[in-house]
Amino acid sequence: MTMTNEKALVDQLILFESHQSPFECAIRGIELPVIAEFEHDGGLSCPDFEITNRVVEADGADLTRDAFPNISRLTGNQVLTAVRSDVAPIGKRVAVLFSGGPAAGGHNVVAGIRRILGAGNTLFGVKAGPLGLMKGDCFEIGLSDVDAILNTGGFDFLGSDRTKIKTADDMARVLATVQKFKLDGIIVVGGDDSNTNAAFIADFLAPHGCGVIGVPKTIDGDLQVGDLVPISFGFDTATKIYSEIVGNILQDTPSSRKYWHFIKLMGRSASHVALEVALQTHPAVTLISEEIADKKLSLSQVVEQIASAVVSRAANGINHGVVLIPEGVIEFIPEIKALVRASNEFMAGDDVATASMAGRVEMFGKSLNSEMKTLFTGLPESIQTKLLMDRDSHGNLQVSQIPSEELFIELTEKRVAELDPGVKFAPLNHFFGYEGRCGAPTRFDAVYTYNLGLVAGALAVRGKSGYMAGVTAIGSGGKGIAIPLAGLITTERRSGGDHMVIKKALVELDSPAFKFFESRREAWARSDVFSSPGPRQLWGPLGNQVPMTVALNLGSESLSFLIGK
Amino acid sequence: MTMTNEKALVDQLILFESHQSPFECAIRGIELPVIAEFEHDGGLSCPDFEITNRVVEADGADLTRDAFPNISRLTGNQVLTAVRSDVAPIGKRVAVLFSGGPAAGGHNVVAGIRRILGAGNTLFGVKAGPLGLMKGDCFEIGLSDVDAILNTGGFDFLGSDRTKIKTADDMARVLATVQKFKLDGIIVVGGDDSNTNAAFIADFLAPHGCGVIGVPKTIDGDLQVGDLVPISFGFDTATKIYSEIVGNILQDTPSSRKYWHFIKLMGRSASHVALEVALQTHPAVTLISEEIADKKLSLSQVVEQIASAVVSRAANGINHGVVLIPEGVIEFIPEIKALVRASNEFMAGDDVATASMAGRVEMFGKSLNSEMKTLFTGLPESIQTKLLMDRDSHGNLQVSQIPSEELFIELTEKRVAELDPGVKFAPLNHFFGYEGRCGAPTRFDAVYTYNLGLVAGALAVRGKSGYMAGVTAIGSGGKGIAIPLAGLITTERRSGGDHMVIKKALVELDSPAFKFFESRREAWARSDVFSSPGPRQLWGPLGNQVPMTVALNLGSESLSFLIGK
Repeated sequence: MTMTNEKALVDQLILFESHQSPFECAIRGIELPVIAEFEHDGGLSCPDFEITNRVVEADGADLTRDAFPNISRLTGNQVLTAVRSDVAPIGKRVAVLFSGGPAAGGHNVVAGIRRILGAGNTLFGVKAGPLGLMKGDCFEIGLSDVDAILNTGGFDFLGSDRTKIKTADDMARVLATVQKFKLDGIIVVGGDDSNTNAAFIADFLAPHGCGVIGVPKTIDGDLQVGDLVPISFGFDTATKIYSEIVGNILQDTPSSRKYWHFIKLMGRSASHVALEVALQTHPAVTLISEEIADKKLSLSQVVEQIASAVVSRAANGINHGVVLIPEGVIEFIPEIKALVRASNEFMAGDDVATASMAGRVEMFGKSLNSEMKTLFTGLPESIQTKLLMDRDSHGNLQVSQIPSEELFIELTEKRVAELDPGVKFAPLNHFFGYEGRCGAPTRFDAVYTYNLGLVAGALAVRGKSGYMAGVTAIGSGGKGIAIPLAGLITTERRSGGDHMVIKKALVELDSPAFKFFESRREAWARSDVFSSPGPRQLWGPLGNQVPMTVALNLGSESLSFLIGK
Repeated sequence: MTMTNEKALVDQLILFESHQSPFECAIRGIELPVIAEFEHDGGLSCPDFEITNRVVEADGADLTRDAFPNISRLTGNQVLTAVRSDVAPIGKRVAVLFSGGPAAGGHNVVAGIRRILGAGNTLFGVKAGPLGLMKGDCFEIGLSDVDAILNTGGFDFLGSDRTKIKTADDMARVLATVQKFKLDGIIVVGGDDSNTNAAFIADFLAPHGCGVIGVPKTIDGDLQVGDLVPISFGFDTATKIYSEIVGNILQDTPSSRKYWHFIKLMGRSASHVALEVALQTHPAVTLISEEIADKKLSLSQVVEQIASAVVSRAANGINHGVVLIPEGVIEFIPEIKALVRASNEFMAGDDVATASMAGRVEMFGKSLNSEMKTLFTGLPESIQTKLLMDRDSHGNLQVSQIPSEELFIELTEKRVAELDPGVKFAPLNHFFGYEGRCGAPTRFDAVYTYNLGLVAGALAVRGKSGYMAGVTAIGSGGKGIAIPLAGLITTERRSGGDHMVIKKALVELDSPAFKFFESRREAWARSDVFSSPGPRQLWGPLGNQVPMTVALNLGSESLSFLIGK
């Protein structure tokens, strides 16, 4: 009897392999409501698009118009809005690709595109990103293929890559793929850089009759355009995954009563992730890179913030806490940037290579002005050594290579001991990044991306080009829109010349989300008032929530979203 | 208008602080079914307990009987089973404490105890574990207090600590607390060591009229007693949290197509956690410490397993994968233990302190026999250095201080390069531990612990002592039982003498769970057949699943559990 049962269970468990866990099977059936203009008689209907009066233009629009003459002229930098249509295009051939790091909901974008194209049009999947587009590595995606990927995490259905399509030769290869597959449209699912790239390709392909549409993806949340692009997809899922983990660790702190956890979170250019996780969980200290840059804080000022929280909590009998650190934080501290630059110059010197590490530390210290010398000599030995290690073939040390959580732990330890040697301080460190990119999407990301796919697919078969697909009015049913890519692009002066870019959306210090954080953080530092937002729920009374930062910045009445009915 | 809305949302968000997130508010309302014998007319009813014919005895029962004369005599090492009763005890005074690391469901144990005690009896919470018990740091827990902690994670309602109560003086302090609060019973919620400790206290307190009851807790899963204790509480939640994270990372690997993730999972003495996560997710390689020990594998044999998986997957075009590493794995490799022991002896030598690190490496190498020398010289420099660093005041280096995931990464890198220099191998490492101890309990852990609390509370007010509370028959409604603690205890020879212990339950190589793993792992290594079990769901069609290892080892027909109706 027992033997039979075991056998039966073993057989069940084998069936769970290859994305067939009970969870994966169940989520494929979650309902995905659809924006009104895309729905007809319970089925999908391909809308058309109308020009609105809303013009989008970034700084330096003249330069942008020169760089993107075709799409600037075609779009007039005007936003489009989806309107019902009785006639659906047929015979169109569209390709879709992922570009850059994965984000939850990518598969639903593909599913939305495939379904709005319907049986009358053809969709190709491009394997492994922009490089695959240049190679012409495409396969046809059938209508039934999307059933397997619906609501699942990851980008593995297509794969992705970070190649930039930029040279004339690159463009020629893309054109060859367009001609080989007779493409009418290409949809690029990616972040700010990938969407800039999409604009270049759109402009290049315009004379060849193939449109290019972007879809806003990035877990970092730094691709936002006011109410037009309230958030890039993947941010909600990633921050809810990190928030659960951080909430669990917070819950652990007063249980075990002895650790300070220093938690680094993904987000190099902007601190949206750290801010969102902070609002969800209320840890003792959260560093926001943009604030540090704005207030021109020195490293020791930042450390002082952490150390004083440690000391004042200890005075209240609390020897534990959590510090959230955005991945890119030390790149926002001007003196660190200067020190790394100085170390790069120093290491290029003639007599350095043969010197011992102790010799280098001494020589480098002497080469610095007194302010920088104080900074350098105050650093932990491991970081000093890191700064003065032989450079490998990749060239200069980057600020991002400094292990910031270790730096803050060591400096906080030192400072706490100075402030009050009696304080117990047992630090641990974590980095959460990859954990959040490929989880199954939250309900918001699932519905948002499916509708983004519908919009992108409809734009592609309607022959539009040079737009980013958008879903706006996420609290009141949703509206499908198209945002002119050239209108988002500006010129940024970087080392090595000017670059056309979509400006990264940073945490604004006068935004409602930051101001709310600012108004509460002292209370969060003083005592344990944290919360555990728990694992994201796909069923039941929860799971209908947009990110708190997004809701605050949109001026919403609640955290709920409503897309479709 | 916008201003008003923002204000309203801000006010809502402030209300989420201090464990009032929407998730935390909603989970408090989750229904907790109750074993039949504890239910009457829709309310709770305190059962009595009957002696069964089942006797529990570990190896060396004579020695145990001598060490625990009182509880051995009182319990006769016989299992008790709960039976309906019309008369509930009143006027009893019971204290509950957490001992050791937190595990999900601890709060529900307290809730179950409080509710089965009802208005007629008194429950005290002991603050901060065994040390709090010695200090007499107790507070009364009201019936309404449990509403706030129901189904929440963590041990923070009481706090915990790892103090061992062992000396006569310790026992006297416990007795003082018993007398001060006029306690009839003490409930110790803890792992194998804490339950052994509970047995000692039970035996000591027997003449003083205060009973002691244990409750089986530990996320490591190494406190199991066949069908009597199918699993310790907290294991299900911890492994489901780790499985989600590992599943997300697995999902990331074919999306970004470039990393090998080496993931260390909590579990020093046993590999139940790693095995469960492996069954849930199907990674390329999972190390099981017990198998390594049983087969007496050398470090290079273990590395060969990983490296050959890397190379053979690369041959199939797969340059990514996941390796699961139980926290304690290298403590199971005999030659590593021997090397660490040799390094401790070497470092105690006279002339070592003044030698440079390079000198130490050379001297130590020379001091070893040829086999050990090969092992040592084959180690990464960072590990060699670690072995020969000055010992601090804590004394000898412990095997556990060797960073095993780094060791395996470096050795795998080296071996892969030897096997095939053309293979791309980009490793990343993670450690997941604290993330899993304090999450909100799964449905299984929530219901299981609430019922464990009911059983423990009923045993305490019925004046029982020297038992561990148990819930068995978890697939068919549940039965409340009491397992005699002395029957679980055996004598273990350790360095420094004999110790009375509850033997840790290790992964048995002939268990159905391990055999299933063994039968599938080659398929998992060959290609990507992984699954994402997703975040644990508290509502909806899922969330009713026990751990796969538990279901397999119990010979269950399915993963579902049924406790109560």
